[in-house]
Parts: sequence; structure tokens; C-alpha cells
Amino acid sequence: MLEADFKYIIDTFFAIFSMTLIIFMVPGFAMLEAGLVRTKNVTSVLTINVMIYAVASMAFLLIGYKFAFGSWDNDSMSKWAAFLFQMAFVGKTINIMSGGVSERVKIIPLMIFAVVMAAFIYPAIVNITWGSNFLSGTMFDISAMHDLAGSTVIHSTGAWALLAAIIIMGSRKGRYPKGGGIRVIPASNIPLVTLGALLLWIGWFGFNGGSVGSISSKESADAVALTIMNTNTAGLAGAIIAALIMYVRYKLFDITMILNGALGGLVAITAGPDLYDMYTPILVGIIGGTLVVFAVPVFDKLKLDDPVGALSVHLVNGIWGTLAVGIFVESVSFMDQLKGVVVVAVFAFTSSFVALYIINKIVKFRAEDDAQVEGMDVNECGVEAYPEFKRAI
Amino acid sequence: MLEADFKYIIDTFFAIFSMTLIIFMVPGFAMLEAGLVRTKNVTSVLTINVMIYAVASMAFLLIGYKFAFGSWDNDSMSKWAAFLFQMAFVGKTINIMSGGVSERVKIIPLMIFAVVMAAFIYPAIVNITWGSNFLSGTMFDISAMHDLAGSTVIHSTGAWALLAAIIIMGSRKGRYPKGGGIRVIPASNIPLVTLGALLLWIGWFGFNGGSVGSISSKESADAVALTIMNTNTAGLAGAIIAALIMYVRYKLFDITMILNGALGGLVAITAGPDLYDMYTPILVGIIGGTLVVFAVPVFDKLKLDDPVGALSVHLVNGIWGTLAVGIFVESVSFMDQLKGVVVVAVFAFTSSFVALYIINKIVKFRAEDDAQVEGMDVNECGVEAYPEFKRAI
Amino acid sequence: MLEADFKYIIDTFFAIFSMTLIIFMVPGFAMLEAGLVRTKNVTSVLTINVMIYAVASMAFLLIGYKFAFGSWDNDSMSKWAAFLFQMAFVGKTINIMSGGVSERVKIIPLMIFAVVMAAFIYPAIVNITWGSNFLSGTMFDISAMHDLAGSTVIHSTGAWALLAAIIIMGSRKGRYPKGGGIRVIPASNIPLVTLGALLLWIGWFGFNGGSVGSISSKESADAVALTIMNTNTAGLAGAIIAALIMYVRYKLFDITMILNGALGGLVAITAGPDLYDMYTPILVGIIGGTLVVFAVPVFDKLKLDDPVGALSVHLVNGIWGTLAVGIFVESVSFMDQLKGVVVVAVFAFTSSFVALYIINKIVKFRAEDDAQVEGMDVNECGVEAYPEFKRAI
Repeated sequence: MLEADFKYIIDTFFAIFSMTLIIFMVPGFAMLEAGLVRTKNVTSVLTINVMIYAVASMAFLLIGYKFAFGSWDNDSMSKWAAFLFQMAFVGKTINIMSGGVSERVKIIPLMIFAVVMAAFIYPAIVNITWGSNFLSGTMFDISAMHDLAGSTVIHSTGAWALLAAIIIMGSRKGRYPKGGGIRVIPASNIPLVTLGALLLWIGWFGFNGGSVGSISSKESADAVALTIMNTNTAGLAGAIIAALIMYVRYKLFDITMILNGALGGLVAITAGPDLYDMYTPILVGIIGGTLVVFAVPVFDKLKLDDPVGALSVHLVNGIWGTLAVGIFVESVSFMDQLKGVVVVAVFAFTSSFVALYIINKIVKFRAEDDAQVEGMDVNECGVEAYPEFKRAI
Repeated sequence: MLEADFKYIIDTFFAIFSMTLIIFMVPGFAMLEAGLVRTKNVTSVLTINVMIYAVASMAFLLIGYKFAFGSWDNDSMSKWAAFLFQMAFVGKTINIMSGGVSERVKIIPLMIFAVVMAAFIYPAIVNITWGSNFLSGTMFDISAMHDLAGSTVIHSTGAWALLAAIIIMGSRKGRYPKGGGIRVIPASNIPLVTLGALLLWIGWFGFNGGSVGSISSKESADAVALTIMNTNTAGLAGAIIAALIMYVRYKLFDITMILNGALGGLVAITAGPDLYDMYTPILVGIIGGTLVVFAVPVFDKLKLDDPVGALSVHLVNGIWGTLAVGIFVESVSFMDQLKGVVVVAVFAFTSSFVALYIINKIVKFRAEDDAQVEGMDVNECGVEAYPEFKRAI
Repeated sequence: MLEADFKYIIDTFFAIFSMTLIIFMVPGFAMLEAGLVRTKNVTSVLTINVMIYAVASMAFLLIGYKFAFGSWDNDSMSKWAAFLFQMAFVGKTINIMSGGVSERVKIIPLMIFAVVMAAFIYPAIVNITWGSNFLSGTMFDISAMHDLAGSTVIHSTGAWALLAAIIIMGSRKGRYPKGGGIRVIPASNIPLVTLGALLLWIGWFGFNGGSVGSISSKESADAVALTIMNTNTAGLAGAIIAALIMYVRYKLFDITMILNGALGGLVAITAGPDLYDMYTPILVGIIGGTLVVFAVPVFDKLKLDDPVGALSVHLVNGIWGTLAVGIFVESVSFMDQLKGVVVVAVFAFTSSFVALYIINKIVKFRAEDDAQVEGMDVNECGVEAYPEFKRAI
């Protein structure tokens, strides 16, 4: 057998394996978010998650993929496998955004935005980073940024869109009462939150490991394994530091913060897990988890109402993780990383804001106050999540 | 290394990978069905799902596999891996059947039927389609039917057995009140429904991708990747069309119907995902999802009481998907597809009906009315699903 | 391509695949245990499961791995993949232990013990069985024991630690009332129990299959496939026999016992799935499942309070499974197996007891009675698992 054929076969298989792991993030996000919101909004959140996967993937198939990469052709693996791997990413940017506007966002305008994001905004960002790069040679060329699996390309992009969305939609009714202060709204189902976060964690192995792009040489096999190991290590460190901080401050182990700490570490490591030695990810994750714990109250003080903590996890750590590669890896320029962060920030925020603004003029994103009080499930889905269970509150 | 050895190794690995994904369908079906039934029947449904996996797989190991394939020998991969892959399929036919008679079926007769199905009925159908074909050369030879992963062999077979079962067992007490009309019985746990459906979706990648049978050449690697991509695309299209139809008709996004639409698309694509170009699956899925939405009320009008919509998903789309290959793929004869559908229909329905009828004479399938009112969990399992949660209804 | 490179690549990929499956056991254990305990202790159990993964993996990375294997070097696959595979094991020993002291154990001392177990006790046992073996040549050398994936090394080790922990911590308040008898405490969420057990089952394919260590020759591919098939078969047999026994005795199908029967079969097969023919695992599993059913009331009579049945599943079957290889496989000496069981028992129990005893002097493991009555969630986590659901009991 020709070595090229061997590589083609193995890398196709590996891309399918990685893609499958990433698809576990679909139930991952769905369970995480369904567990974090109130029971009256659970069906709505689940419906949104399923529909994002359906709508965004279809838009990427029909429009976005070719826009991002210039062509479907691929020599190193089956072009269908290459597509599947990239398709598994696209919904995530919208999941990040939709989670943060849970309990008030309406489904129809959100689906319109999902099409815009998956067909145009996200592919444009992929185009200038991992793709055919229409900015090549211009002053906005950011292809020198090292962002293996998307601390910036995926996580910051989704979170900048979320920031734009929160500004346009406002906070949930009752979250910031007129008298001042913040109304605590507890997560309704902690087993779902835990299951979801752990499925995301497992999906991350495919996300980052698969982003190495090949496993068919000794060097690439090593790179894949190191990438997955470092990814995991940063998650461990994020969870541990979040637990420690919570305990020191409150003498309590708050599992939602511990899991968000882990996710923060995972987001932060995503830019460069292939370039670190085996100890640096501990530091990246510790800082990532710490940032989550301290960012959550800051966003609340700014009255940016984000029920799942997505800004703290994905925006703060998307930026931190991308810059960290420039700090800890000698061969990577900090300025290149910073430039990438800034260019993507400006483009993702601006384009999302414009898209959201226009859509909002046509169909309001925000549900009416009384619909929010009654719950999105009854109003948008006609299906209660737990109809037989008596509510305590 | 010899090329033959390379292929043996890779295809063994790939079969194990695919089998593993399919086994995720065991929790997939279990969660889906547990979420769709009332809380008083949840433990019973879960017990049935676990026991089907145990009993059917064991019967297939001891009897069914050899009957289906004539021999355990295998040259192209480890014979143990080949068995595991096929074993992962067998329980699905019974899952399809058991789901549709939930909330009234008793466990013991169902387990007897599981043995009959896994040891004889399903292996006989595999024998004449994918297996050693004892009908070869007779007028009933249907080996020309193209059914890659079982739109007919798995899904229709299970659903024909279900139809026979519903006829024999009747509807749930109170479902069709004497005064006329249909009593709506809402799903009790929507996160479980969603989780289950998404696990099924992921399992389908292994189901259909693995059915290509090899990934160890460039051509087969392409075929596997295309198969998985097309499988996914049909699921996306099924979900989208079901959402659109529900919204147009009711201004509500009913997630149970959206998920059943996706599953309908997935069933429909299963016969020929390897033969379509990348756009046809959109059409196959759109028609599949549409069929589900319109079939559900039809079966209810016929008073065929099917709590999970299995007839609409698996029977209607099993037929549609098999015929679709004859319609959209030039090299496949529509008449061969139709003949396959009809022969399997006659055999699966008749043999299941006879088996169910005889078993029913010995041990009644249907629980007594008062047992149904009290709930199957207390009566059959002695274990409540949610003993600490207060019931609202 | 050199054959050695081919093997390196394939075995790295296979180790990553196997590791990923094992990581599904993290949500597996978490969901199983969260479903088995009362709602007031669910968040605590989930927090413990997440933190065990984080703390134990980190301790193994920093200390335990090198202690167990003597070196990070690896010629046959990427050393990072080899680490990841082993790391996936370490938390399991502590999961086994923590599950059995649920509803009364406090998080901080448990985390201290997790460090001791993952950095020292478990690595020491790996060292003398699968690792560099510092006892080689002494009278305590047990390297002749065949324990492919850890019936003794993992399951018995964790369960001996559990036995020590139960002795030190005592039973849950109210479990054995002063007037005599045993207070039955039902599982609070059966879908979670089922989901968790099925995820563990799937994870076992990676656990045992991956422990073959290579899939890159025809012989090893066969060994992997046979191992996974036999693993599964023993689980099937354990579930079936547990169901039969429960039905014969109580006319009820108790799903928690059926699932524990399956897990018992899986633990029992873990020592030698690569050495049996395809029928022997049925016997191993039948005996395993039977042992679970009869051991559960025995431990209760001994007032060893174990809310999840971990002693019955992991201790009894860890021993049975290891001895079974000596009974059923001619080339394996029963005395070597027995010696391995005894040496590990003495070392694991003694070292765990000492560690637990010392930790307990510094920070009490057992929560105060009134904290137990109120629930661990409020006391240790500040987060209720299901705050919106009204309690029935």
C-alpha cells in the first residue's frame, strides 16, 4: 500500500472519530443549559439547542463551508470527513451565544441569526484564520496567530456575538430589581448540568485533538496525544482552582462554579495545546479557572445578564488562552496573538451586532415580560419540560 | 506489513469503533422512551430497555448470528469484531417494538418475544438480505434490494412487529375514551427525550458508517465519510421540516415532533446513504420528516396507540427510505426495492404476529386495567422512578 | 512506511480511542451515584465525582504515574497516549470508594484521601502488577497473576479502601435504627441510575479492550475484539441472572439489582477477558451477577452501610473474577491468582485504613448527624440539586 493511501485512510478515520466526539457536545450544551435554567424554560432551551445544530449545520453545508475554505477539495483525507469535522464546530459559536440569552430569547429570530452566523460571520472568521484567507497580504492579515482549535475563532467569536445579543436584548425580567441588587436564580437540575459539562469535556478531546489535522505520522500521533493530554490537564486545573477559591471564600463547594472553572480552563488551553510542555497547561488552567470565578460577578455588576456564565467562560478565557500562547511559547509572537484577538473581536462583535440589530427590527428577539414570567416553554413550544412534577417555587 | 494484514487491523478497529457508537443507542432508546412515558411507567420502560439488550444480545450470540450468516468465519476482520457489530443491531428491532407498546406491556412475555425475535425472526431477515440467503435463486430472493444499514431490515422489521403487537395488545387504558376523541398524554421528562434522541443520532453514525463494512482503502474511506455525512444531513433536514410544519400549523415548536422528524429523516436515509450525492439526502430527510408529522395523527385515528411515535418514525420511513433509493439512484431498481419491502413486510408481520399470538395465549402481554392505572413501575418492578418528587398530576 | 511507525500510529490512536471511552465512566459513575442517593445529597455526590476526576488525575500526573511505571518513556506508542490511558483508570478506584460512603462523607477529607490514593496507594499496586515491580524477586512478587484490566488492581483496590472507609465512618444516620432492622432508602432517580450504569458498560469496552495494549497486529486485533466481546457477554449474563433471581424471589424486576448484576459480571470478567473462549464469560457473569444479589443483604446484615452496593459489585466480584481466571484457564495458576488477590488485599486495605485513619484524626470524614438529616448538598455545596421540585418525602 502506498504511504499516501495509508495516511488518507487513517486521517479520514481519525477525523470521523474526532467529529463524533465533538457531536457529543450537542447533548453536552443542551443538558448543561437545560440544567442551568428554570424549569419553565427548559423545553425552550432544549429546542433551541437541537434547532441550532440542525439549522447551523445545514447553512454551513449549503453556503458556509465553501466560503470558509474556498473549495471542498482535499487531498489528505476524504473531503466528506474534512467537512464533517468542520461542520461539528459551527454550531458551537451559536450555542455559546444562545446559552447566554436563555430565558428570554425567542426561537424564530435566533434561528435567523443562526443562519447568518453559520453561513457568513463564522465562515468569514475561519476564512481569515484557518481558511483560504482573503485578507492575505493586507494589514489585517492575522494568519500568524496560533489558534489551534479556536480559543479565538470559536469561543471568542461566539461570546462577542453573545455580548452584542445581551446589549440588544437586555436582561431577564426581574434579574436586576429596580430597588437594586441581583436576584439569584438557581439552576433547576444539577445532574443535567454535570452531565452536560462532562460531555463537553469529552467532546473537547475531539475538538482539540482533531484540530491537529493528522495522526498518520509518528510526529503527528505525538502531537495529537500531547494536545489531548494538555487539554485535559487545563480542565483539571480549572476545576481545582475554582473549587479552592469557592471554598476559601464561602466554605462551600459550588459545583456550577467548579464546572465553569473546568470549562474556562478548557477554553483557555484551546489555542495552543500542541505547543506547551506538559506542565504549562496547569498554569493556563489555573488562571483560566480563576478568571471565571472573578469574572462572573463583574458581568453581573455591569448588568450583563448571562444565565450560564458564557461570557466568563468563553470570552474572558478565549482572549486569555490566545494571549497565553504568545506568553508561554517562545516561537509564537505575543503581538501576533494580540492582533488576532483584536481583529476577530472587532469583526465578530460588529458584524454580529449589525446582524442582530437588523433582525431585531424585523422580529423582536426578546420575549414580552409576561411571556417570560409564564415561561418560554408554554409560550414558544407548547410543551412543558416536567409536566407531572409539582413545583416548589 | 502485508496489505491484507493492514486491512484486517484497520477494519477490526473500525468495526469496534462503530459498534461502540451503536451501543450508545441503548441509553439512547432508554432515555428517549423513559422521557416520553408517564412517571409511573418510567422504571418499567428502563427495565425493558436494559433487559432487551441483555436477552436479545445473548440469544443472538447463542443462536441468531450463525443462523443469519451461516458461519462465524471472517477473513476481512476479526470474527469477534464482526459479531460485535452485528450484535449491536439486533436489540434495536425489539426496542422499536417495545417502545410503541409502552405503558401497558408486561415484561415476561416481552422477554420471551425478544428471544424469538433475536434468535429467529430477525436473523431470518438478515439471512435473506445481508447474510447467507437461503432464498437465493427462489422467487422470493430479495438480495438485489439495496438496504445498506437497514431501513427495511432493521426499522421496518421492528415496526411490523410493533404493528402486530399493538393489534394484539390494544391501546393504553383511557387513551381513546368511550365518548370519542383522544386523551393527550404528555411526555414526562423532556431533557431525557432530547438526550435520548441525540444519543440515537450519534449512534446512527456508527450504524450507517460501519455498515459500509470497511474503511481500509481510499474508496471505502470515502464511502464511509460520505455515508456519515449523508446520514447526518437527512437528520438535519427532518428536524428542520418538522419544526417548520409545526410552527406553520400551531405557532409552536414542539420538540418531541422535531426530534421525531430528525429520527424519521435518519431512518429514511439508512437504506442508501452511500449512494446519494450530498444534496439528495436533504430531500430524503424533508420527505421523511414530513411523513412523521402527518403520520402521527393518522395512526391515532386508526386507534393504533403508539406512545413514542415508532410507527411513524420507523415503519413509514423504513418503507419510504428503501423506496427512495430506487427513486433517486439510477443504478438501483425501484422494483427490487419494492419487492424487498413487501417480502420483508409479509414475513416480519406474519411471523411476529404468530409468535406474539402464541406467547399471548400462554402469558398475557397486556397489563390489567387497574395495573395500568396504578402504573407499571409498582406492579412489575417494585421501584418507583422518582419516589421523592411530588406529582402534580 | 516502516512497520514500527505503523504500529506506533495505530496503537496511539487506539489508546486515545480507549481512553475516551473510559472517560465516559466519569459521567457514568456520577449519574449512577447521583440517581442512587436521596435528592438532598445529589449535588454533593456530583461534586465529589467531578472533584475526584480532577484531583486524582492531577496527582497521578504529577506523582503517581512515574511511581507506577518507573518512567514516562514508551516505544510502542506516544508516551502521552500511554499516560492518558492509565490516567483514565486512576479515578475509578476512588469512585468505587466514594460511592459506598455517599450521604455522609465530607468533601475535604475525601479529597485528601484522593491525593494519597492516586499518588501513592494505587500506583504502588500498579507498580507490583503492571508496572516496574519493585517487589520483583521477593516472596511478595505477584507479577504472575493474570489481571488484564484490573479485577484486582482496580476494583478490589477501590473496594478494600471502601471497606476501610465504612469501618472508620460508620453507617448513615438512621440506616440501622436502634430497634433493629434496616431502613430502606430508595434511589431517587432511576433514569440517572440507568444512564450511569450504561455509560459505565460502554466505558468498559475501552477499559478492557484498551488493556490489551495494542491493536496493530492481526493477533492483537483478534485479542482486542475477543476481549470486548467477552466483556460484554459477562455483563449480559450478570444482568439476566440478577433479573431471574429477583423475579423468582419477589415476582418483581428490580432494575437497580439488574444493573448491579450487570456491573458485577463486568467486574468479574475484567481479569481475563482475553483468555476465555466465547462461552466461559457467560458462566463468569452468571456467577458474578448471582454473587451481587446474595452479597447485598449480607453486607447489610454486617451493618456495612454501602448505599450503591459497591462492596458487592467491586469487592466480591473483583476477587471472584481474579480467581476465575485460575479456575477456567489452564495456563494460569490458581495459586498465583490467589496470591495476587491476598497480597493486594492486605496492602490495599492496610494502607487505605492507615491513610483514612490519619486523615480522620485531622479532618473528620463523617458529617454530623444533623448535617446528614438536612442533607449534604446544603451543608457542603450550598446548591440544591432540584430546587424547583417539590419533595414528596
